[in-house]
Formats: sequence, structure tokens, C-alpha cells
Amino acid sequence: MMHSVVLARRPQGNPVEADFAVREAPLPEVTEGWFLTRNTFVSLDAGFRNWMNEDSGDEVLPAMGLDEPVMGLVLAEVLESKHPDYAIGDKLMARFAWQTHSLSDGSDFIARLPTELEFNPSAYMGVLGDTGMSAYFGMTDIAKPTAEDCVLISGAGGAVGTIAGQIAKLSGARVVGIVGSQIKADWLCNTLGYDAAVVRSGDTPLTEAIGEACPDGVDVFFDNVGGQTLEAVISNMNHRGRLVLCGAISGYGVTPHGPNNLFELITKELSVEGFMTHFRHDRYDEAREQLSQWLRDGVIQSPEHRLEGIENVGKAFADLFAGENFGKTIVAL
Amino acid sequence: MMHSVVLARRPQGNPVEADFAVREAPLPEVTEGWFLTRNTFVSLDAGFRNWMNEDSGDEVLPAMGLDEPVMGLVLAEVLESKHPDYAIGDKLMARFAWQTHSLSDGSDFIARLPTELEFNPSAYMGVLGDTGMSAYFGMTDIAKPTAEDCVLISGAGGAVGTIAGQIAKLSGARVVGIVGSQIKADWLCNTLGYDAAVVRSGDTPLTEAIGEACPDGVDVFFDNVGGQTLEAVISNMNHRGRLVLCGAISGYGVTPHGPNNLFELITKELSVEGFMTHFRHDRYDEAREQLSQWLRDGVIQSPEHRLEGIENVGKAFADLFAGENFGKTIVAL
Repeated sequence: MMHSVVLARRPQGNPVEADFAVREAPLPEVTEGWFLTRNTFVSLDAGFRNWMNEDSGDEVLPAMGLDEPVMGLVLAEVLESKHPDYAIGDKLMARFAWQTHSLSDGSDFIARLPTELEFNPSAYMGVLGDTGMSAYFGMTDIAKPTAEDCVLISGAGGAVGTIAGQIAKLSGARVVGIVGSQIKADWLCNTLGYDAAVVRSGDTPLTEAIGEACPDGVDVFFDNVGGQTLEAVISNMNHRGRLVLCGAISGYGVTPHGPNNLFELITKELSVEGFMTHFRHDRYDEAREQLSQWLRDGVIQSPEHRLEGIENVGKAFADLFAGENFGKTIVAL
Repeated sequence: MMHSVVLARRPQGNPVEADFAVREAPLPEVTEGWFLTRNTFVSLDAGFRNWMNEDSGDEVLPAMGLDEPVMGLVLAEVLESKHPDYAIGDKLMARFAWQTHSLSDGSDFIARLPTELEFNPSAYMGVLGDTGMSAYFGMTDIAKPTAEDCVLISGAGGAVGTIAGQIAKLSGARVVGIVGSQIKADWLCNTLGYDAAVVRSGDTPLTEAIGEACPDGVDVFFDNVGGQTLEAVISNMNHRGRLVLCGAISGYGVTPHGPNNLFELITKELSVEGFMTHFRHDRYDEAREQLSQWLRDGVIQSPEHRLEGIENVGKAFADLFAGENFGKTIVAL
């Protein structure tokens, strides 16, 4: 049988487990030009929240349908094929729905993986997947930190943040993270080499807490959160600091808080650049090669937050928004 | 006698004429190391509003004092001197207060002008002054428009906007302005060569009005207004568009509106850069030379909005915020 996680109702603000349901159906028949996969892992990525609202379709993706399988990223292995380009046993990372099996004609977004995996399967969806790419392009193309910089990262304990921080450390920069809990803060510093971490919802107001953790100001901000967090950071930026906007989880599915201190962009001559990994497909090989080398050399770790079973996919997604994950969240099917 | 415009009370939101008062005093005595000027023109610059609040001092300027002369920019001529570097008759543009006469030891921000002025006096405070510099650096250093771009400028009828638009036209770009009235819109198109203009407070919501004036989207936005205007423009930006933040008159002295659509910076990969002419002093000569050449060649005009008399300086400043000015506002003393 094939199991699918469907969008049972449209999330209000942050998604919760009950927004999702598991449906069971017989395996689909494979006709000429199609192939069927067995999906081994589901990748949980907060960004997909953006396409769960009714009128959310855009140039990147269409809006997701109610009671239809939720679009996402999975690791898959070809089980049966009547497609000339896909053979049984081929390993893929694909933009397939949250399902135990997927039927495809090859027109989906698909990346091929080696048959013998060199790294942990989760690495292909984390550090070598979209989130690792985001960290790579955002840091090496845009932020370009140097040893003189203080680099601040929000959502620092998440899939992107954990990799972005480690890449920033390679430049010799001082690296500080913003996270949701003291446990995560300690984990970042003790395990991933962050120099300091700020707890977002601590007793000290965020603006002040950042000032204490970055006494010489912030030169580079890599943002995964947006809203109030972005506002607090702007007040701590140094003259000609650079802000790289990678994500804005605080505003997914709700009306985002608009930072009211953008005038500081002028008085401090700040630059802000948003980017989407999506638009850099042609450079995935380059990025994956460099990240693989860093993994082999042991200079970057690929922290994995793993759950088991298709029935836990909805919960794993909700956990991202509650800040429960340490690194890349995946569900093994 | 010497007349000074003082800050009679701190403006609430947009400044009004009654926030200012004129005081009379005898001419000060000139002692060793000092010189006295007769000021011929006062330049009105909205940005100075930022330092009229009680707790507004920053690295650029200290907060202005109540009942003290208002800090600004003036055109001055040395009347009497006991300073080795300043001789009677020297012409200066200086960050002096709104006064008919100024006493200085030379430590103020002062630019020397030729004794024989080649251009209209207002040109030295407009197109060749801070506002012209802002237009020049913002357009040529940061925005860098090309003939393929649609360039949108807010506050397009103001001192910076009128010059910025003309510089953008030199690149061959399509240039569209956002202004406060239909009269200004017509003036921009008929007199300064703007291709189109949008009225900010017209019947059509701004986001939609911009879409109509820029049917292929906006590639470059040069912002003097901020807030709701910035928000409306973000929704009309093209992929990888550039936003240059020069000023934010909508937020001076009030809590600015924070744009709640910054997520579009990510999905459209926009870049935003703020700048202050203030930090580019070392390149004023280069900028002034180029702008002077454009004036000589007749490819750029220097529109002047002139009032007369020290008693009208406060009103002229308030007019900036009411959008009453066409080009550079000055008061002849």
C-alpha cells in the first residue's frame, strides 16, 4: 500500500500536527513513460509553508490543494520503471510529495544521487540538499565573511543555520547564532563551533541581548527568521554591514511584522540582499562538490534531527516552527 | 543685526511653520581665529528633521536644542575675518544654522565656492550641493541603470528626485516618478523628461498605480520616501531588481511604517542598499565636476523653488513635507 500525508486543513499561522492526515491507497499502476519510487526519507523544509495558503501560488510553485499530498522533498529509489531514463535501483532526491511511493514521468524537479551513498542519507537532503545549498550560496556568494567580521545568524540551530554558521567559521569570522532556547544555544557553541549564541525569547530584550553577544556590532547578518528578529539585528549592525535574507520563518502564513527601523539602512549604509537557491540550479554541482569535500575533510558536520514513520511527518513539520529541531529534520519512512 | 531661525518647539510628525521662530540679536564680535559670514541663501533639506527630536543625536549630528538656531546648509560670504584661511569675500557653502550671519572658527563642515559663480546660486546647494551629490552617488555608484531598465523614483519632484531622474535618463532608462500631486506629475514629464509619473494619493491604490505606470515591472527603485511607498514598490519590483534608499521622508519624526512584504526581497532576489552622501566627502569634487559638466552641456536642469526672507525659512521647511516644492527649495536672505 502507498501512504500519503495530505493537507487536511490550511494552517492558521504556524502549522500544527492536526493540519495533516495520512491517507492509504493501493500502489498506482506504472504505464509507459512513467516510473514508481519507494521513498526512503522525507525532508522537512519550513519554506514550503508558503504554498499552503489558498491564494499562495506564484512563479516558484502553485498553491497546495486541500486533501492532496503535501509537496516537499524526498529521497527516493526507483522500484519499477517504464521510463527510458530511470532504472530500478536509481537513487534520486526529488520534489515529490510526502508519500511512501511516488509516480513520476520525470518532469518533476529531480536530482540523481550515486547508487552507493558516500554520506548519511540525511546529508543529501540537508547539507548537500536545498538547505545546504542555501547556506553555501548565501555565505559564499553574498555575505562573503572575512576574519574581521562578526557574523550573526538567525534560526541558527536549523537546517540552514547550522551549515551557514560552519561555513562562516571557515572564513575565520566570529560567529554568533540566534536561537529559541538555551539548550540549542549550548549545543551550537559546544558542538558546531559557534562563538556565542543569543536566546530569542530570553529575559533580555533581543536588541540588547544581541548587543551583549556582539559587543563590537554585527558586520554580517544571515537571516532565516525576519520580522522582529530582523528589526532587532538592524539596530546592532555596523556601518556598511551586509544583511543576507535567506528565509523569514516568523512571517510564513501570517502577516509579517515590518521592521520600522529601515532608516538605519540609510544612516549606516547597510546593504540587504535576498536570494533563493531555486534560481541557482545550474550551480548545484559546484556547491555539492565543495560541501562534500568539507564533509570528507571533517570541517563541517551535518547534524540530523530524525523521526521515524510517515505518521510523524506532519508533526516533524510543525516542530520546525516550534524550534524543536537541532539541524536538518528528516523522517525515515 | 543678525536674525536666526530657532527651534521654537519640537515638531510632532511633519514640521509646521509654528515650530520655528525668528530671533534678533546684535552681530557677534569677531575674535582671533574666527570669521563672520553674511549668509545669502538657506538650503532646505528634509533630512535635518531627523535631528529635531529630543533624543535624536547620532554619529552624524547631535540633536538640535530647543530655542537654538536650527542647523542646516547655507551659502555664505565672508564679511569679516581674523582667521588665516578665510578672507573677506570668500564664498562658502557650509553647515551653518539658519541665520543671516554665522560666526565660525572653520571647524564646521565647509565647502569653498569660486568667487565668481558660474551657475545660479541655488545650483550650489541643489544639483552641486548635498542633494545633487545624493542623486549622483545613488544613481551612478549604486543603482547603475541601463537602457533596459525601468527606473522608479519616489519624491521625484524634490531636490534629490529631480536630479536623480535626469541622471537616470542619461543612461537611456525609462524613468517614472512618484509624486504627491497631478501638477507635479505633469511638470516632471513636460519639463524634466520623466517618461511617466504616479500620483501617490490618487484614486488608484499606489501598488496598482505603479503597476499601470510600469507595466513591465520596476528594475531600479530610488527611494526618498520609505514606509507605505516602499512597500507598494517592493510588490512591483522585477526579479533581481535593485532598491537604493536615499531618504525616508514619510518616517521623519514619526514611527515609520515597516513594509510587511520584505519576504519578496527573498522570492524576487532583490537587493537594497542605503547610503549617505555624508560618508563620501572625499569624492565631492569628482561628483561636482561631473554635475557641472552636465549643467554646462544643458543635459541637466537645476529646478529651483525659491522663497524670500528669513521669516519664510520655517514655512519653506514645512512645505517640503507637504510636497509643495518643485525641485530644490531655497530661501534668499
